[in-house]
Amino acid sequence: MTLPDMLQIDDLLAAYRSGDFRPSDLIREITGRIEAYQQKDPAVWISLFSTDHLLARAEELDGLSSTDLPLYGIPFAVKDNIDVVGLQTTAGCPAFAFEPSESAEVVKRLEAAGAIVIGKTNLDQFATGLVGMRSPYGQPSCVFDPACVSGGSSSGSAVSVAAGLVSFSLGTDTAGSGRVPAMFNNIVGLKPSRGVLSTYGLIPACESLDCISIFTGCVADALRVEKIAAAPDSRAPYSRSMTPHRLPLDSFRFGILPESERFFDGDAGNAALYENSIQTLMHLGGTPVEIDFAPLKEAAQLLYSGPFVVERLTALGDFYPQHKADMDPTVAGIIAGAERYTAADVFKAIYRQHGLQQIAERMWTQFDVMLMPTAPRIVTKQEVIAEPVAANSMLGTYTNFVNILDMSACAVPAGFGKDGHPFGVTFVAPAFADHDVSLLADRFHQAVGENTGAARSEPPRPVPPAEAMSPGSVRLAVVGAHLKGLPLHWQLEQEHAVLRETTRTAHDYRLFALANSVPPKPGLVREPGFVGAGLEIEIYELDSAGFGRFVASVPQPMSIGRITLEDGREVSSFLCAESVARSGTDITATGGWRAYLAGKD
Amino acid sequence: MTLPDMLQIDDLLAAYRSGDFRPSDLIREITGRIEAYQQKDPAVWISLFSTDHLLARAEELDGLSSTDLPLYGIPFAVKDNIDVVGLQTTAGCPAFAFEPSESAEVVKRLEAAGAIVIGKTNLDQFATGLVGMRSPYGQPSCVFDPACVSGGSSSGSAVSVAAGLVSFSLGTDTAGSGRVPAMFNNIVGLKPSRGVLSTYGLIPACESLDCISIFTGCVADALRVEKIAAAPDSRAPYSRSMTPHRLPLDSFRFGILPESERFFDGDAGNAALYENSIQTLMHLGGTPVEIDFAPLKEAAQLLYSGPFVVERLTALGDFYPQHKADMDPTVAGIIAGAERYTAADVFKAIYRQHGLQQIAERMWTQFDVMLMPTAPRIVTKQEVIAEPVAANSMLGTYTNFVNILDMSACAVPAGFGKDGHPFGVTFVAPAFADHDVSLLADRFHQAVGENTGAARSEPPRPVPPAEAMSPGSVRLAVVGAHLKGLPLHWQLEQEHAVLRETTRTAHDYRLFALANSVPPKPGLVREPGFVGAGLEIEIYELDSAGFGRFVASVPQPMSIGRITLEDGREVSSFLCAESVARSGTDITATGGWRAYLAGKD
Repeated sequence: MTLPDMLQIDDLLAAYRSGDFRPSDLIREITGRIEAYQQKDPAVWISLFSTDHLLARAEELDGLSSTDLPLYGIPFAVKDNIDVVGLQTTAGCPAFAFEPSESAEVVKRLEAAGAIVIGKTNLDQFATGLVGMRSPYGQPSCVFDPACVSGGSSSGSAVSVAAGLVSFSLGTDTAGSGRVPAMFNNIVGLKPSRGVLSTYGLIPACESLDCISIFTGCVADALRVEKIAAAPDSRAPYSRSMTPHRLPLDSFRFGILPESERFFDGDAGNAALYENSIQTLMHLGGTPVEIDFAPLKEAAQLLYSGPFVVERLTALGDFYPQHKADMDPTVAGIIAGAERYTAADVFKAIYRQHGLQQIAERMWTQFDVMLMPTAPRIVTKQEVIAEPVAANSMLGTYTNFVNILDMSACAVPAGFGKDGHPFGVTFVAPAFADHDVSLLADRFHQAVGENTGAARSEPPRPVPPAEAMSPGSVRLAVVGAHLKGLPLHWQLEQEHAVLRETTRTAHDYRLFALANSVPPKPGLVREPGFVGAGLEIEIYELDSAGFGRFVASVPQPMSIGRITLEDGREVSSFLCAESVARSGTDITATGGWRAYLAGKD
Repeated sequence: MTLPDMLQIDDLLAAYRSGDFRPSDLIREITGRIEAYQQKDPAVWISLFSTDHLLARAEELDGLSSTDLPLYGIPFAVKDNIDVVGLQTTAGCPAFAFEPSESAEVVKRLEAAGAIVIGKTNLDQFATGLVGMRSPYGQPSCVFDPACVSGGSSSGSAVSVAAGLVSFSLGTDTAGSGRVPAMFNNIVGLKPSRGVLSTYGLIPACESLDCISIFTGCVADALRVEKIAAAPDSRAPYSRSMTPHRLPLDSFRFGILPESERFFDGDAGNAALYENSIQTLMHLGGTPVEIDFAPLKEAAQLLYSGPFVVERLTALGDFYPQHKADMDPTVAGIIAGAERYTAADVFKAIYRQHGLQQIAERMWTQFDVMLMPTAPRIVTKQEVIAEPVAANSMLGTYTNFVNILDMSACAVPAGFGKDGHPFGVTFVAPAFADHDVSLLADRFHQAVGENTGAARSEPPRPVPPAEAMSPGSVRLAVVGAHLKGLPLHWQLEQEHAVLRETTRTAHDYRLFALANSVPPKPGLVREPGFVGAGLEIEIYELDSAGFGRFVASVPQPMSIGRITLEDGREVSSFLCAESVARSGTDITATGGWRAYLAGKD
């Protein structure tokens, strides 16, 4: 069996389910790919499990059914600031290296789901950088251009996915480390909301902001991995339970940079690709709204030039004073900058962080999601060597503000420039919008029409419809005055309900136009044994609380209960007290309320 | 008209509504009371509006209808670290005093609701203390004993309510300043969740932890004031919207101190009153569970002995270095302690704070609420003069941990010792449980049977039933297998539904025992024109999200819609498709499902 260039999860699971391909076959294939890629770029990995070790793990899985585990035999890479038992954790600094006695919580959860850790990937030392150049283990290259950086700090993790060496990888993201490398390598980077993935077993960069992130070839895979990796963990101080924040996916307003803030550091190709991205999103139902970029810029400055760098110093404890000389000089220089801040400076910065979060909160009333360039442009290794700090800070222009303002983000490819370098955009949304912001990013990624990863040979797999429903949400069929455009539709809008489907009921329902109802309303009634043509309904998705409020306000003689659809599925729907309905006019033959209204005119 | 000793809101509103009492009459009455109380204790107020000013404000209200405004003509006092236009803000430090150009947001909201600011009350300087002794404006006394402190830092605010000079007062609470003085003066102290009341216009103590708090004679008044004062405010960096956290009020587990942690500093009377309080709460349906006090103690230490004191330094800015000598020496000494902390110390403390919050999160799985002594015992002024710091820290034993762990709390009276000094307990719950923790505190306060305030002449007014419903919650009537003790009742428990009422439907409903239903279920149907005896139902309260999940899982042929009760109210209820119901057995004559089942046995 020939595997595709990119190891997207559904493709691998399909191969396993076909019966003639097993996890041990996969290991033989990817150890070969890794060896071959080492010839091209030896800086991707800091450590790898031996083929024997990997085969032993794969053979355990060979004995199980491929349908037993959601990530059965799925290979992944782990950024080398996250603990994996059996491999050293270096954080990109040999003097810091240690053998962890326990794997990070997210690694354990992914392994329990059947995934296989292949090795540990290179990074900017202590995750301090966006370039991927600040490592004694070498400088990974952009998969498209050996002269260019891969982006950092999750440099090796992004390349491992883009080059088809693993299906997904774990990165980390404090200022953009889980997004910038996604752009430079034409893949997806999901930056979950803070605290959703446990940081237990992660070497902190800025502990109050760090997020473990996920690189994949398609959004569908990132969502699948996040779902398995996410869980509250009381050993992670910033752990939080996720109460999903929903987005109006079918009719959304998206924030865009005003012309004056469109900084691409001279890359006109990327400027055009950003403009194209706006057009694409408008075609997907979005309305653009200009962002006031000033508070976001201030938040970025607060992270980049303020006392949050003290967190990096704090994380290193005694190591820093004792091993300054063993560190990457740029990283050591950045951390040295932390020594000038006082305790009062820290509180002042935290107060301003909260103040800016309040401003951001107000911004979300103007638009539902922001469409940001992921980075202004890719940079060459030579440029970074010449200006190690300036080049790095340019890269964070559109990523730095996200974690300090407690937002979720999903970076996706957005096409290529004439120079053959990829561009990317990031969808940014409030905390806990992880699921819905990813759905939107997926629709965009599908619409861009670019194949994924280094090979550009396969399309990104779309999010399957079953996954497209937000966790914790409920579907409601509406039949009459709540249909789109009709008088009570605003009640659904008020609860941010999203239209998911227009379909029909099963055959044994009748619809009556109620007598004396204001506004005019029909009543739906099931009549076992009746055979009609079914009635047209619209199915909306809304969260449980909104659904609860909605149901509580439904007046007599209406009620909400399950109905059966023409394809046999069941969904909650409006119903009507039968005696009241039957005192109206039977309009079943019209096929639905909208058709009935049209016929009346 | 003779006003009662305590100015509880309902009593004043009733007086206004009787028609022969107006706000200007109130002003004449309380200016007299204030003058008289000044003879007894001249340290309660730092500044007061002139009688002319108050009469002018009252006369504006005289011209309105008493039913126009929810706090029509209700007098209140404001702790002097909260801005009120027309009076200086001193924060207890004459050198710091200034004339605010805008009132604090909460003050504006309360005034807009008809309340009248009478004056500004004394406090421990910069809200740094729990004793009420650290002020150049004098040392307010406990209303029961001039030798004892009133408690602080909201010293004057508590006395102003307990002495019947105002209906309510605003305090602040960082380490217990809104609770300890409530105990010492036999009144209620509601400490809202952080961010629910805007801190815009408050001189910060520890900005990341400060809460504006509410003193009243009864819990009902505190809830009423909070409802009006609460609103998100983007000018307050720590502002948050409240998503109510519900408590199982009818069958709750309450955390109690294990014997080894019951520290009353030698006051055996208070130890016995705490034990009595546990018994009282058991009689109200609670099950006691011993608390692991160690993490709470660590949190208290972190606040009291850790770098959070740097916030107090930060809040004072340039004032502290320039005016140390003008400050209370104890307060200046505490703030001087902040100078030893580094920026790294601050981040380490914040990480530990978050770590302890995770531990607290787990504690809430063991019990729903904690019953804490508000303070171990009252102290004399002489004791505080002898040991100004030690006496103060003893007072915070059971209050210090609450804000640093992001909890809500309501302090209520719990009886008197033989020495005539009051004891109090505090109900502590997770963030955003403000409403439900107050309801529980009210039930307790009613059960204690002590009259409120200094005069001890009137019972605290109970929370009226209409207010006892949590904001954002929904009521659901159940008719059959979901009744308490029946097979599907667990589905309600799973959503933490609380039984609120057992009552009957209107006369025109019929109940049918469904044929072939597992478990056995009835179906409720309305039949306009039918006159029966109504059917027994139970009404549960649950939050919108739980209600939404519940409704989404209701199987055919059931549905949820409004029904009419025997008293004409409407409530969401189980209903049944009529054709299915009528194919079963009419059991309307039995009066309800439970009676029908009993008759079958």
